[in-house]
Amino acid sequence: MATAPTPDDRFSFGLWTVGWPARDPFGEATRPPLDPVEAVHRLADLGAYGITFHDDDLLPPGIDRAAVLARFRAALDATGLVVPMMTTNLFTHPVFKDGAFTSNDRGVRRYAIRKTVRNLDLAAELGASTYVFWGGREGAEVDSGKDIAAALDRYREAIDTLAAYVKEQGYRIRFALEPKPNEPRGDILLPTVGHALAFIATLEHGDIVGVNPEVGHEQMAGLNYTAGIAQALWAGKLFHVDLNGQRGIKYDQDLVFGHGDLLSAFATVDLLENGGYDGPRHFDYKPLRTEDIDGVWASAAANMRTYLLLKERVAAFRADPEVAEAMAVAGVGELARPTLGPGETLADLLADRSTFEDYDPDEAGERGYGYVRLNQLAVEHLMGAR
Amino acid sequence: MATAPTPDDRFSFGLWTVGWPARDPFGEATRPPLDPVEAVHRLADLGAYGITFHDDDLLPPGIDRAAVLARFRAALDATGLVVPMMTTNLFTHPVFKDGAFTSNDRGVRRYAIRKTVRNLDLAAELGASTYVFWGGREGAEVDSGKDIAAALDRYREAIDTLAAYVKEQGYRIRFALEPKPNEPRGDILLPTVGHALAFIATLEHGDIVGVNPEVGHEQMAGLNYTAGIAQALWAGKLFHVDLNGQRGIKYDQDLVFGHGDLLSAFATVDLLENGGYDGPRHFDYKPLRTEDIDGVWASAAANMRTYLLLKERVAAFRADPEVAEAMAVAGVGELARPTLGPGETLADLLADRSTFEDYDPDEAGERGYGYVRLNQLAVEHLMGAR
Amino acid sequence: MATAPTPDDRFSFGLWTVGWPARDPFGEATRPPLDPVEAVHRLADLGAYGITFHDDDLLPPGIDRAAVLARFRAALDATGLVVPMMTTNLFTHPVFKDGAFTSNDRGVRRYAIRKTVRNLDLAAELGASTYVFWGGREGAEVDSGKDIAAALDRYREAIDTLAAYVKEQGYRIRFALEPKPNEPRGDILLPTVGHALAFIATLEHGDIVGVNPEVGHEQMAGLNYTAGIAQALWAGKLFHVDLNGQRGIKYDQDLVFGHGDLLSAFATVDLLENGGYDGPRHFDYKPLRTEDIDGVWASAAANMRTYLLLKERVAAFRADPEVAEAMAVAGVGELARPTLGPGETLADLLADRSTFEDYDPDEAGERGYGYVRLNQLAVEHLMGAR
Amino acid sequence: MATAPTPDDRFSFGLWTVGWPARDPFGEATRPPLDPVEAVHRLADLGAYGITFHDDDLLPPGIDRAAVLARFRAALDATGLVVPMMTTNLFTHPVFKDGAFTSNDRGVRRYAIRKTVRNLDLAAELGASTYVFWGGREGAEVDSGKDIAAALDRYREAIDTLAAYVKEQGYRIRFALEPKPNEPRGDILLPTVGHALAFIATLEHGDIVGVNPEVGHEQMAGLNYTAGIAQALWAGKLFHVDLNGQRGIKYDQDLVFGHGDLLSAFATVDLLENGGYDGPRHFDYKPLRTEDIDGVWASAAANMRTYLLLKERVAAFRADPEVAEAMAVAGVGELARPTLGPGETLADLLADRSTFEDYDPDEAGERGYGYVRLNQLAVEHLMGAR
Repeated sequence: MATAPTPDDRFSFGLWTVGWPARDPFGEATRPPLDPVEAVHRLADLGAYGITFHDDDLLPPGIDRAAVLARFRAALDATGLVVPMMTTNLFTHPVFKDGAFTSNDRGVRRYAIRKTVRNLDLAAELGASTYVFWGGREGAEVDSGKDIAAALDRYREAIDTLAAYVKEQGYRIRFALEPKPNEPRGDILLPTVGHALAFIATLEHGDIVGVNPEVGHEQMAGLNYTAGIAQALWAGKLFHVDLNGQRGIKYDQDLVFGHGDLLSAFATVDLLENGGYDGPRHFDYKPLRTEDIDGVWASAAANMRTYLLLKERVAAFRADPEVAEAMAVAGVGELARPTLGPGETLADLLADRSTFEDYDPDEAGERGYGYVRLNQLAVEHLMGAR
Repeated sequence: MATAPTPDDRFSFGLWTVGWPARDPFGEATRPPLDPVEAVHRLADLGAYGITFHDDDLLPPGIDRAAVLARFRAALDATGLVVPMMTTNLFTHPVFKDGAFTSNDRGVRRYAIRKTVRNLDLAAELGASTYVFWGGREGAEVDSGKDIAAALDRYREAIDTLAAYVKEQGYRIRFALEPKPNEPRGDILLPTVGHALAFIATLEHGDIVGVNPEVGHEQMAGLNYTAGIAQALWAGKLFHVDLNGQRGIKYDQDLVFGHGDLLSAFATVDLLENGGYDGPRHFDYKPLRTEDIDGVWASAAANMRTYLLLKERVAAFRADPEVAEAMAVAGVGELARPTLGPGETLADLLADRSTFEDYDPDEAGERGYGYVRLNQLAVEHLMGAR
Repeated sequence: MATAPTPDDRFSFGLWTVGWPARDPFGEATRPPLDPVEAVHRLADLGAYGITFHDDDLLPPGIDRAAVLARFRAALDATGLVVPMMTTNLFTHPVFKDGAFTSNDRGVRRYAIRKTVRNLDLAAELGASTYVFWGGREGAEVDSGKDIAAALDRYREAIDTLAAYVKEQGYRIRFALEPKPNEPRGDILLPTVGHALAFIATLEHGDIVGVNPEVGHEQMAGLNYTAGIAQALWAGKLFHVDLNGQRGIKYDQDLVFGHGDLLSAFATVDLLENGGYDGPRHFDYKPLRTEDIDGVWASAAANMRTYLLLKERVAAFRADPEVAEAMAVAGVGELARPTLGPGETLADLLADRSTFEDYDPDEAGERGYGYVRLNQLAVEHLMGAR
Repeated sequence: MATAPTPDDRFSFGLWTVGWPARDPFGEATRPPLDPVEAVHRLADLGAYGITFHDDDLLPPGIDRAAVLARFRAALDATGLVVPMMTTNLFTHPVFKDGAFTSNDRGVRRYAIRKTVRNLDLAAELGASTYVFWGGREGAEVDSGKDIAAALDRYREAIDTLAAYVKEQGYRIRFALEPKPNEPRGDILLPTVGHALAFIATLEHGDIVGVNPEVGHEQMAGLNYTAGIAQALWAGKLFHVDLNGQRGIKYDQDLVFGHGDLLSAFATVDLLENGGYDGPRHFDYKPLRTEDIDGVWASAAANMRTYLLLKERVAAFRADPEVAEAMAVAGVGELARPTLGPGETLADLLADRSTFEDYDPDEAGERGYGYVRLNQLAVEHLMGAR
């Protein structure tokens, strides 16, 4: 049985997750505001390691910033909770309705950079090592209303300007762009992990810019989340992850991790634990609108519990000799072997008649890979049935 | 009224499109095989400029290659049709059931490279300037059966090896990777334009590698096709396009261009005509299975006719002073202006109180962008109603 | 060119459409509240015929109902605008977070019936002939939390109870259930037109209960809206329609009619105009959040303008002899002929050797239906190109 | 640990499932034809109870029907396997390219009825009690090419004619319509369980007509499969089920049961075991194209194994006192209580001030339903972690 979560598991939560008052497009809030200090204490009690926030989550306009910060830091100190990641709210206020860094309105773009710089300074002060950019309003509903090339120019200008600032200030912060295909805009720029990685490759300061893929966001495009973060890892760009659940292509659900596609979550944990990722396990979910505050904390615990259970199941799966045998049948390890041999050139390959002239594709095509059996082993391990 | 298509319009068709015998997962072929020479003549008669093909479309295994090629070239010569693009069939034969360049089976990977090299030589001989790679079988249904990082390594190895070959041979050929999210595999590697662009950025010979986005493939992930190719254009990587129609997120429909999301097709033509793309307008569609051979040719003509009509409508839209005025209201052109002024540094911006301390976001948030009106102008131009 | 809308076109708008303050799940309102009386006047000026509302749109809790109603009725009288449809808000208040008629909480269910009865009385008073039920909260995210059979029992109990009341009171009101697959609940009961029709068939008072299908709601399930309302019409149950636009399977967009799938909108107008529907053309859309109040009115006008343009295009399509000829080739009219002849029994059919023993399916299978050509004629008429 | 499957579990398989040669839209068959007699023996060995088939699966055109049937029956007798369900192939042959019962071509419609009658006679002879109708070709890609009302008339004519025949012959057979939203047609008639139930309600002989919902088909429309079959059960119309797996909205995957949305499969087994369904557990899946014949049998076994494991997990979930307590908190059982009390009339309710005038919705809205906790209990039981 999985043990209780501890800070060593590096679980972190957005302040906006447990603090979500549960207002949705068709309904008013069902829960009262949550004191951030209360959130710190409760998350620490549950075994979390970190808390993350947007500037306005903790410090809404007009508040006494110094007082609020002092009280918040005291809670961090008292509990040992850290702030591994921070981000900017560039989407709630009407001024951002057409975007922030890519708004057609230049004044908005300038304001967005300023708002971000202010919070970057705070992030450095609080020791956050990752700064997330979710460009939820960077997009359009009307094709002719947004010059995509110009928008990407402005996006690049903003990210490069801010990354240069971080370097100049000597902050130990890396950026992580969070893709999403749509909602709240009809189409959002950098809609998938792929688009974000491609964009990063064009940056001047791309060395400190990676991605923060969210389970539900990729699944809203029908994409395989694990495969997506695997490409990000392969590119050396998986700086952060947002774990949650989603039940198919629909509105952004932000369910508890594992409460969506559970078999996919198994694969995700397998990759995170065994694929070289070393950042926090960050939950970006929303307690259902039907829950009261007790349900909020139960849901926070559920995220961690499910992750730890999956971690156990994955470990047993990887340790099972029958799995190893099935993987050998499927040639899983064989793929790591280069297609050309050591020192072999294409000319050598072209001269190797066994690869083409004497190759019998019909015979080779008879190979059975046994993937279904392998998947069934995964299902049974997931179910604790082996 | 749009004029008839001519070779100057640079319309090209896959041999496999008009030649599709209309066999689908649940049904047998409804049309007899089409002689490629007949296809050349009929497409030329309809005003097309080019024909494209996979190796096996023209030259199935066991055929007298020289004789078939001679006859095909004679038809090209007689009609003036060119072969602007070629590609390899790495998906039909059972040997490729687990992939080609990324099959877990190394023998398959080696065979796939050989099959491609042979056809690259033919492509150079026929003067094709673009060589497409659609990795329809490069993927998986079972997460634990495919090591994604290894698969991407092998993919990169294959493309770099082949690109190096092209350079060494002095072929005037560029590669274009064609993304697709799924079908026939549960999840396909490089599922979107973004993932492909990101992959290309990691190549040694990426300078001659771009993308060939297909309308339906991006729409199968719910993505905005025009925005996707705009990002590819912005990255200097839109080497080719596959135009067709799709009605939402479902199986790959390959409808006639414009017979899917027509308003999106309007935006696509706008971008292709005015955004700097200079390649062929290639149709990768399938005549419905309900059609006989007359319906096949009617459908081929329909693709070109719809494109030309949209081109006319787009030109009128762009020329309409009311559109120009609506775009000004929306600030479309304003986005091309850098967010920092000429010579302005971030320090300058931070010192400019008008951007933050004295900025009134509430007031700025009242701006109306008038996107709905702009879109309505597009709809009305599309409908020929202005 | 389409003429300006007049009340004879029977265009109606929800008060909540033009009055939407543009608050979304990630952002605050961008527009101030709209006075319902102002809405009445502006919609009348634009040529609308009717305005519709939820109880709370016009009469939020705590308001002076008599005074507000008097002022509203005066505006109706002054403009000639009518109230053809009304509905109940059973989704905004937290009390409805688990549903209204199917909440697990019986007190909520009783309250929901009461709230509806009160507004039904008002509907009768205002002369509304249709009363819509959109059960947006009737659903679940967690399978084990909702007993679907019990929920359908309660749904039936509520609708039958309310329908019986309408009959007893002698109100000239029919009910129209509005399906939606998800959002704001993970899964909503009666998710499509089909599920609602099937439910209605089980009612005691189903004679006065039909459906109110919304374009975007069916398209959120990837379904063909026109085919869905055609089945409703066929069942004699298309009591009302909600017209708007949606760009594929994603969150509920509520775009302007025609600003989503335009070719599908063409088919919808064809069916509404020629298929026997005689209710209002009701727009249930949201002006984009980027619009100011001028954009609101422009968007309202755009709905009507697009409908009228499509109506013109459809009329020309139906009048085109080439279309008639293409439909004959496709056998469109042939489908109206019963499969068994007049007086023919199945025994007769079984004895008719020409239907089986002497039938050559291979030969019959060669028929070309020419659907692509027919669709191209539709596209060209839609584009005003014929 | 789940025991091995036995005929008492009533697992059945389509002959076309294990016998699928793995040809897909982009690839040739990867497996040789499977002898139906071999299928009978192997399925019996694995513990199955039944085998099902389309006419052409067992008896393709031109075969010696008597000889094949005798041999097949001998295998059934030898193994004890039964044929609980049969169906007609009305989709593979080109003649059905525009539909069978709803083809625009009347000759096709007549032929389809004849083909079905012949196989109904065989079904009766073989003792099948369910006859499935999957109208995969009953649909359209082009709106103007199909008169939906006429198509539904013809569909009704065909089903009623055939149902009358069954009654006249005294066959103990019930019909089960199988919905699917799309593929192979762009849009299919009766796309969901709901549409099929609504259609059945219009039949003259609807008493012997129900539905056969397939997991993947409903999920291709983004719908909750369990909720769909719950509505069918509620309507007394769940005559048969097709169990398999699907990973979201995409092409029809026909994965092994549980290899798609596993949490949803848990809910499905819960309903099938505890909701009053008493038909076979029929698997309509396809072994992946990567599998050889050993993989085929492993995949067949995997379906049954996963079902039995889920059945165990569900039983433990239902027996867990903490689950019972959580369900009580959520009010799951409370929903079975009518909204109006015994003997209570609406007038009584209207007179009960506690339901409205004295009801405090704000206070009632504070109730927490604890659904997340309940779902977490389901997840943990599914994972064998409690």
